[in-house]
Amino acid sequence: MEIKDKIKEKIGIIGGGQLGKMMILEAKKMGFYVIILDPTKKCPADSIADEHIIADFDDKAAIRKLASKSDILTYEFEHIGVEVLKDLESEGHKIYPTARSLEIIQNKFHQKNMLSQNNIPVPKFIKVSSIDDIKEAAQKFSYPLMLKSCTGGYDGKGNIVIDSPKDIKKSYQQLGGDNAKLMVEEYIPFKKEISVLACRGLNGEMKVFPIAENVHKDNILYETKVPASIAASLKEKADKLAFEVLEVFTGIGMFCVEMFVTESDDLLINEIAPRPHNSGHYTIEACLTSQFEQHIRAITSLPLGETTLLRPAVMRNILGSGSEGKAKVVGLEAALAVEGVKVHIYNKNIARPGRKMGHLCVLAENRSEAEKRALEASKLIEIKGEI
Amino acid sequence: MEIKDKIKEKIGIIGGGQLGKMMILEAKKMGFYVIILDPTKKCPADSIADEHIIADFDDKAAIRKLASKSDILTYEFEHIGVEVLKDLESEGHKIYPTARSLEIIQNKFHQKNMLSQNNIPVPKFIKVSSIDDIKEAAQKFSYPLMLKSCTGGYDGKGNIVIDSPKDIKKSYQQLGGDNAKLMVEEYIPFKKEISVLACRGLNGEMKVFPIAENVHKDNILYETKVPASIAASLKEKADKLAFEVLEVFTGIGMFCVEMFVTESDDLLINEIAPRPHNSGHYTIEACLTSQFEQHIRAITSLPLGETTLLRPAVMRNILGSGSEGKAKVVGLEAALAVEGVKVHIYNKNIARPGRKMGHLCVLAENRSEAEKRALEASKLIEIKGEI
Repeated sequence: MEIKDKIKEKIGIIGGGQLGKMMILEAKKMGFYVIILDPTKKCPADSIADEHIIADFDDKAAIRKLASKSDILTYEFEHIGVEVLKDLESEGHKIYPTARSLEIIQNKFHQKNMLSQNNIPVPKFIKVSSIDDIKEAAQKFSYPLMLKSCTGGYDGKGNIVIDSPKDIKKSYQQLGGDNAKLMVEEYIPFKKEISVLACRGLNGEMKVFPIAENVHKDNILYETKVPASIAASLKEKADKLAFEVLEVFTGIGMFCVEMFVTESDDLLINEIAPRPHNSGHYTIEACLTSQFEQHIRAITSLPLGETTLLRPAVMRNILGSGSEGKAKVVGLEAALAVEGVKVHIYNKNIARPGRKMGHLCVLAENRSEAEKRALEASKLIEIKGEI
Repeated sequence: MEIKDKIKEKIGIIGGGQLGKMMILEAKKMGFYVIILDPTKKCPADSIADEHIIADFDDKAAIRKLASKSDILTYEFEHIGVEVLKDLESEGHKIYPTARSLEIIQNKFHQKNMLSQNNIPVPKFIKVSSIDDIKEAAQKFSYPLMLKSCTGGYDGKGNIVIDSPKDIKKSYQQLGGDNAKLMVEEYIPFKKEISVLACRGLNGEMKVFPIAENVHKDNILYETKVPASIAASLKEKADKLAFEVLEVFTGIGMFCVEMFVTESDDLLINEIAPRPHNSGHYTIEACLTSQFEQHIRAITSLPLGETTLLRPAVMRNILGSGSEGKAKVVGLEAALAVEGVKVHIYNKNIARPGRKMGHLCVLAENRSEAEKRALEASKLIEIKGEI
């Protein structure tokens, strides 16, 4: 009998940013061959990928080339033209998460609809085709409202809070008006934002990571603290919800399920990402298996790994500072001198204010100590753009 | 003031085997650029290095080329012609550990002499220039004796146990006789073999990892168990000895100090490796900082990381089985299905019985559980050669 040598399988990743890079670092431990597709020659994952197809993400021929070279396709971001992926799937290519689940998730309205139809709690929402739809939402949900682009948004891009009737027209036009796919959601005055990193294998096996508590600033993830300081019963509920989400989308691989904890301690799904997520970076140091290893295991049909939290952890992003320009790392020594600090530098050539250039993660005996040290270290390191 | 951008520094590694690969995986997290020198085109570190100089290890011109491309040179094994490194150092190149410490350590007789002169306990030993020297040793130390090649040995190669006078001549000739550099040591009937992984930074800062307990089979490391089951007082003594060794050699970077625990609970230094070591692989999963990250931090003048043990751990090597031939991994799924198991595959193209092809590491709540699972997983996975 021919026994299959799993590590001879080639993994193709659409995208070679920091998530792709961190996937490869785990895939390489286990010996996989990895090919990336990314338009940027010196993207973060370039130097550690076995092959790099330099092409735009909407270059269908290039995606086909990647598929032809790979045994399994995955991706590090959800804004991919899904048609070519569906065609490839129908031709027999393995793509995880599947094109079908990506198609629904990448449109926020379809995503929310799917969740809602499956009795998974989400903020109230309606589709917006005209200014009148927003006015209708205002009557139903009252102000403030969240106006959102259904596709393409990330890190708060594509989201506008509407505080009063006079903002409606401007906001509507700002997000593309009649030519755009938009939706409106009720604004949730949440107590906490949490994310549940969860993974489902090809055989239906599911594992969830310790729940993370997130703090955003200017719509960008700023800090993730683990364990989340919420009641055990709420954790249990959140885990259950995440598993339901995976089942609903027949998810294969890592998913991030972001949730709001409301004033009344209810959970509402905010957003879903069908991939490893910024709020799961803490798992690299703090868990027995990282979200990246878990993703690689899931898409290559390997058993999922244990997700035990080894120590409380706090992650902070290192965003670009200064001007837009050639990236320069300043203060790495000082940050690493803080106890328990790990620094990840993504190697993006160009820094821009607000761009994710790296992150740091601190493990400590307790969460408040980790928070203190993360704050201290984050003040000491900077990745700035120089003209 | 010009602020130096540390991660712009390029690290050159002589050797692209599994140790080089694991160094790069850590260096890449922090964003360093890495160049390797290795004669094998598809060596383990090839696919993740930024550049690969394909050349023999004794190719001085190639080592010079590596040095000219790198800001810092290091190495993953100690059998390197030290002359070119000394020349490069005198020309201003940074090489860590230094050529001087490598020169002494790579000759086992000089290594032991240096230790002994600094009152660090070692087994009794003498230099061997003739058969008579061995006979003299037999009178002094009594049988069995350890006959060792002073240079070039590893994994027991170059070591012979002499049990009685009649074995002397044969053993002497087997290791090269009059043409070889040999030494004889007393045979130590040890209770335990332990290794202390320790690191010294450029500023003299030193950190030690939790002490590991090793089991060898056929002279190859077979299993490493952490924490070592030895008394706290002995641990303290071992740590102190390791620090003394680092000071004696003015070590920069990771060192492995292998020690015997004698029947009377004394410690004797067996061997020193001026680099990350097989018995320190457990640190990747089980410690806050791995030996590879620590090495990278030390040689790039970054502060050393915390070495806290997060969980008891057991590491087992995956040695080649079957015939010499194209490597094939069998049973990866089964091994990964055992709780808490991590598998590292080195991607060596050719498997040979006894060749180090990968390793596995198991973390558990207690050491005996980790031992049990490591044994179970090691029976399930195989990397075999196929003709």
